[in-house]
Amino acid sequence: MTDSKYARLFEPVRIGPVTAPNRFYQVPHCTGMGHLRPRADAATRAIKAEGGWGVVCNQETEIHPTSDLTPFPEGRLWDAADIPALRVMTDAVHAHGALAGVELVHNGAHAANLGSRAPVLAPSDTVIDALYPKQARRMDKADIRDLRAWHRAAARRAREAGFDIIYVYAGHEMTLTQHFMLPKFNDRTDEYGGGLANRVRLTRELLEETREEVGDTCAVAFRFAVDQMLGAGGMQAQEEGREVVEMLADLPDLWDVNVSDWANDSITTRFEPQDGYQAEYMSWVRQATGKPVVGVGRLAQPDMMLSMIDKGVMDLIGAARPSIADPFLPAKIRDGRIDEIRECIGCNICVASDNHSVPLRCTQNPTMGEEWRRGWHPERIAAKGRAEEALVVGAGPAGLECAMQLARRGYDVTLADAGRDPGGRVLREAGLAGLAAWRRVADNRLHDLRQRANVRLYAQSRLDAAQVAELGIPHVFVATGAKWRRDGVGRSARKPVQADAAMTVLTPDDIMDGAVPPAGPVLIYDDDLGYMGGVLADHLARAGREVTLITPAPIVSPWTEMTLEQDRVQRGLIAQGVQIRTGRVLSRIVAEGCTTHGAYGEPECDHPCGSVLMVTSRRRETGLHDDLRAHQTREEIGLETLELIGDAAQPGLIADAVHSGHSAARAFEADPESVEAAFFRREIIALTD
Amino acid sequence: MTDSKYARLFEPVRIGPVTAPNRFYQVPHCTGMGHLRPRADAATRAIKAEGGWGVVCNQETEIHPTSDLTPFPEGRLWDAADIPALRVMTDAVHAHGALAGVELVHNGAHAANLGSRAPVLAPSDTVIDALYPKQARRMDKADIRDLRAWHRAAARRAREAGFDIIYVYAGHEMTLTQHFMLPKFNDRTDEYGGGLANRVRLTRELLEETREEVGDTCAVAFRFAVDQMLGAGGMQAQEEGREVVEMLADLPDLWDVNVSDWANDSITTRFEPQDGYQAEYMSWVRQATGKPVVGVGRLAQPDMMLSMIDKGVMDLIGAARPSIADPFLPAKIRDGRIDEIRECIGCNICVASDNHSVPLRCTQNPTMGEEWRRGWHPERIAAKGRAEEALVVGAGPAGLECAMQLARRGYDVTLADAGRDPGGRVLREAGLAGLAAWRRVADNRLHDLRQRANVRLYAQSRLDAAQVAELGIPHVFVATGAKWRRDGVGRSARKPVQADAAMTVLTPDDIMDGAVPPAGPVLIYDDDLGYMGGVLADHLARAGREVTLITPAPIVSPWTEMTLEQDRVQRGLIAQGVQIRTGRVLSRIVAEGCTTHGAYGEPECDHPCGSVLMVTSRRRETGLHDDLRAHQTREEIGLETLELIGDAAQPGLIADAVHSGHSAARAFEADPESVEAAFFRREIIALTD
Repeated sequence: MTDSKYARLFEPVRIGPVTAPNRFYQVPHCTGMGHLRPRADAATRAIKAEGGWGVVCNQETEIHPTSDLTPFPEGRLWDAADIPALRVMTDAVHAHGALAGVELVHNGAHAANLGSRAPVLAPSDTVIDALYPKQARRMDKADIRDLRAWHRAAARRAREAGFDIIYVYAGHEMTLTQHFMLPKFNDRTDEYGGGLANRVRLTRELLEETREEVGDTCAVAFRFAVDQMLGAGGMQAQEEGREVVEMLADLPDLWDVNVSDWANDSITTRFEPQDGYQAEYMSWVRQATGKPVVGVGRLAQPDMMLSMIDKGVMDLIGAARPSIADPFLPAKIRDGRIDEIRECIGCNICVASDNHSVPLRCTQNPTMGEEWRRGWHPERIAAKGRAEEALVVGAGPAGLECAMQLARRGYDVTLADAGRDPGGRVLREAGLAGLAAWRRVADNRLHDLRQRANVRLYAQSRLDAAQVAELGIPHVFVATGAKWRRDGVGRSARKPVQADAAMTVLTPDDIMDGAVPPAGPVLIYDDDLGYMGGVLADHLARAGREVTLITPAPIVSPWTEMTLEQDRVQRGLIAQGVQIRTGRVLSRIVAEGCTTHGAYGEPECDHPCGSVLMVTSRRRETGLHDDLRAHQTREEIGLETLELIGDAAQPGLIADAVHSGHSAARAFEADPESVEAAFFRREIIALTD
Repeated sequence: MTDSKYARLFEPVRIGPVTAPNRFYQVPHCTGMGHLRPRADAATRAIKAEGGWGVVCNQETEIHPTSDLTPFPEGRLWDAADIPALRVMTDAVHAHGALAGVELVHNGAHAANLGSRAPVLAPSDTVIDALYPKQARRMDKADIRDLRAWHRAAARRAREAGFDIIYVYAGHEMTLTQHFMLPKFNDRTDEYGGGLANRVRLTRELLEETREEVGDTCAVAFRFAVDQMLGAGGMQAQEEGREVVEMLADLPDLWDVNVSDWANDSITTRFEPQDGYQAEYMSWVRQATGKPVVGVGRLAQPDMMLSMIDKGVMDLIGAARPSIADPFLPAKIRDGRIDEIRECIGCNICVASDNHSVPLRCTQNPTMGEEWRRGWHPERIAAKGRAEEALVVGAGPAGLECAMQLARRGYDVTLADAGRDPGGRVLREAGLAGLAAWRRVADNRLHDLRQRANVRLYAQSRLDAAQVAELGIPHVFVATGAKWRRDGVGRSARKPVQADAAMTVLTPDDIMDGAVPPAGPVLIYDDDLGYMGGVLADHLARAGREVTLITPAPIVSPWTEMTLEQDRVQRGLIAQGVQIRTGRVLSRIVAEGCTTHGAYGEPECDHPCGSVLMVTSRRRETGLHDDLRAHQTREEIGLETLELIGDAAQPGLIADAVHSGHSAARAFEADPESVEAAFFRREIIALTD
């Protein structure tokens, strides 16, 4: 290893009283599990430690009921009752030789305290972040004293729970310490307001007191957003951001530096294709402190990591999303298996999971969040049973994943796809504006499949039931996908929408197939409300088309709020001159355009256009499956297994399709009862204190 | 009791194999506790049984992981692991002599299965209700067989958990059985689609199989929405609704009948002031079945209840909201304490709690949801400690509640209010269009206070610190409320907005004080996003004013989605001709109007108007409190206790203010540590199976 090009990445790094075994550092990130799913959370973290991350942190961890993020299941360390659940995590991480970090937090006015009903605290009287008619109260001196005592006590509990690194956290615009720093939130005139030194006072006190309390055995880390990405309207890396670092230079044992808010820190590839995009904001930090620095920004490529270390940009390679997409990223670098890395595609399905308050999922890594519930390991899968051979029809995300996992299990796998290039919707969607990085989902799997002797991959091979029969393979997985509907059926219309045949009606599939809409404005009707409507508007506008986007929703692509993209989507379309009409429901398509009515019953109006692009819902492609399932056929051809997977079984996200394909591969020849039981596995409330 | 006018309400009612001890029936309703807070849920239900409800049901209870409402914490009975938590509830209910009911549910495409990742099931391929890019799959025959087996097994588990009444549930447009019944969701051509008998088949099977499974000892109830309130566009009580009742007439042991969807069933007083509003839709049901019928519709007045029984509209008085506002409603009728009933005000804060996934709260009943956590009882409170006397300044919701509870504890209470009529914001807001019922919050408490010898209530008595000192009462609670800001500070602007002095700028308080805006259009700027902006627009439009409502939000009064009112709010304003401009942020107020810019950076535009009404945020009125707190003053006047409560401590909902006043009264002379501990009490995940 020491001879390897990447040896520097595996050097130990001293962090205060503890030592990280290497430079791979999983920075704190939410999992949608937290205090509601502590064993699942621990299992997820443990897998990363097993995969070689030298430091594995948990997520923002509430220190007190005045920082109650209910219903979001983040970390919690209100009192001693929360220690055992976190101990499960630290033990699991330590078992693999990694350090465990905890991100203590008081969320101030970002926590609505809807569960605890405690007062909401802030530097100054203010609104709260949550959409709830309640305001936050300015903290008086007694409140600040209390807060410091709570933080100190939480640090003590964190040490008791076995953590090695204990955070003070001022980032993401979700933290009280950061609120104190920013004049926008702080108009105090006492020693906690006014000049920067005053606004930083609380942070300094928390750092000092945490060190005092646990600094003999635990490292004190400081997570700090150096730049709000608001230009002169907010904190900037080269202005007050730098001053803060200089003021506190050697007070923490570790600087964990990023940008805020969350949408900037975790920006998607759609809006920031460049991996390592945060370096320019923080490359100077290491010069301003004698303590190690960890940075982030989708750092998944080993050469970039090496360059970050060599250039002195950071001492530790921080990662949240890349560690989700591939928990074994460090191990793969260590073992020279670079080409096996599943690179994060920057789609923020992970972030969406947390925003939906459900366990983390990942487009690239279908085992993510399933480590405890289903016992899935990202790198290991059971060897095959008695069967020898399997056929997978369709090489979209479900088919590729299913075929790859079946091949890993040792089956002889035949994978047939109708298209010229395998990849299905992954490749097709990756051809749309902003989504190029998504093709990594196909690339990773195709690379794997192409190296395996037990896989035959046939492109341009659309199979019918007779052809499947001819192949004589008794185990068939059908992953024939779904096609966008042309008839208008979607959320607002459960029956087809009346349409004049004189108007050209297109679907997203047409555009992905390369269709060019006829002359005149393209009217996109988005009743799907996912990402596709906004992506197509962007795609066509970039191609120079005049575009109108009509949707019954009050905002464009509303679900993209979950991936932190919605604001950028709508701003982007406006900047490109896309006409946006929200709150309009399609009444009918006429010869010269569309007629809509208001979502609140407002009167009809007409929208002339040259073509209508319908983004409403999808129809499953089940023809082959239905033919094969016909009882007679099935007996005739000796079909023993017939599984419908992916979008053909249930249209969803690419992440859902990958998960479906993975799941089917795992379930094949497994005990059906134990497969079924996995759906029921969950963490349950204790009935005694 | 048997002599009482209301004796009929206390007759036992036979329901299949079980007997309800009286006619008071708490129909199933959500609590925001469910499987995440089972002990809290049980305590809430137990209080109702103690208060005299003869039947106490739980809430929709998922029968299988394919009906997974995560992150919403409803009931859960997936397998045997869920039995113990529900057993806590049935034992607690039985301890008070009531029957316990369970509402088994499969939510079909209303459940996104985000936790279990199981397929979403529906009669036909369709979109799902949740905003998540995933679709539901048409159930095949095997799926239907599975569903029936799951329901049967869940019924068995429900009996094992101790329930007496077991539901089949087809209502609220959130249930698979109802989806099967409605052609909108069901385009099947097999024996489960087409004619009504086919569409009802699944329900019939579930009813029969539930009876077969547990009907010897448990009653089988059927909750059915007879009317969708969509006219000819949906199921109507006098068409297919009636046919369903006739088809299934005597199959269930009990008919629990309501209207759908949820926003119609639980309509607020703002949009349906008439209590008992559902009778017209279901009064015929009792003639179509030989089995007892329970109905709902804010039935809180004993005379109305009696009339419902006498007229044969129903056999059992169903209630969700009235049982939340007053769990002791039956006991109070029984004991002739009618005037002590806390009548539901129909504000749907309870519904909002569930929509926020947090424990139930209630504007009228501050103990709701706090029975387990804080040990609060709606009718009992600890006797006073050593102190004799207390002063409460301000007779708004916090002050009234605090004074009433202090009086109940036995203190001599002086309550002073600046206004002519005590009630504070309750009375003021109740004067606005649609909110008249809210005054019950004040009426109930004033009625109580006026009968107590230990209370002195002074109206028109604004007190300054000197006057408080003169009174010489050592324990003072300051409930001086909050006032709406005039300077534009709110969610979008953290600093005052530039305003030309030539323009009249009003606040909601001005309107509530009776101010009449000057001539010309009134421009309401709603940056608060609660209910107030929409209420004022309605209020002024009804007064004949030309109104423009501008808000940075994409819809009007977005938070009212939580109370199920948003659609009615926006439709109502449109119908009244209110000009609505969403997605606009106030830039500045000029002499002739306002200038705004787009929430997504769209360019500025001007809005001429005669006055601007600012609904942005509130400023706490803490002057008296601050004067009294000044150390010197405090010693001078011998102040021992000084508590700031209600909106003056933290602006919120009326429910929050009542809760704050209640909390302060309970905490007075209590052990501070045990008061503090209540904030920390919570239910925690078990770390072993």
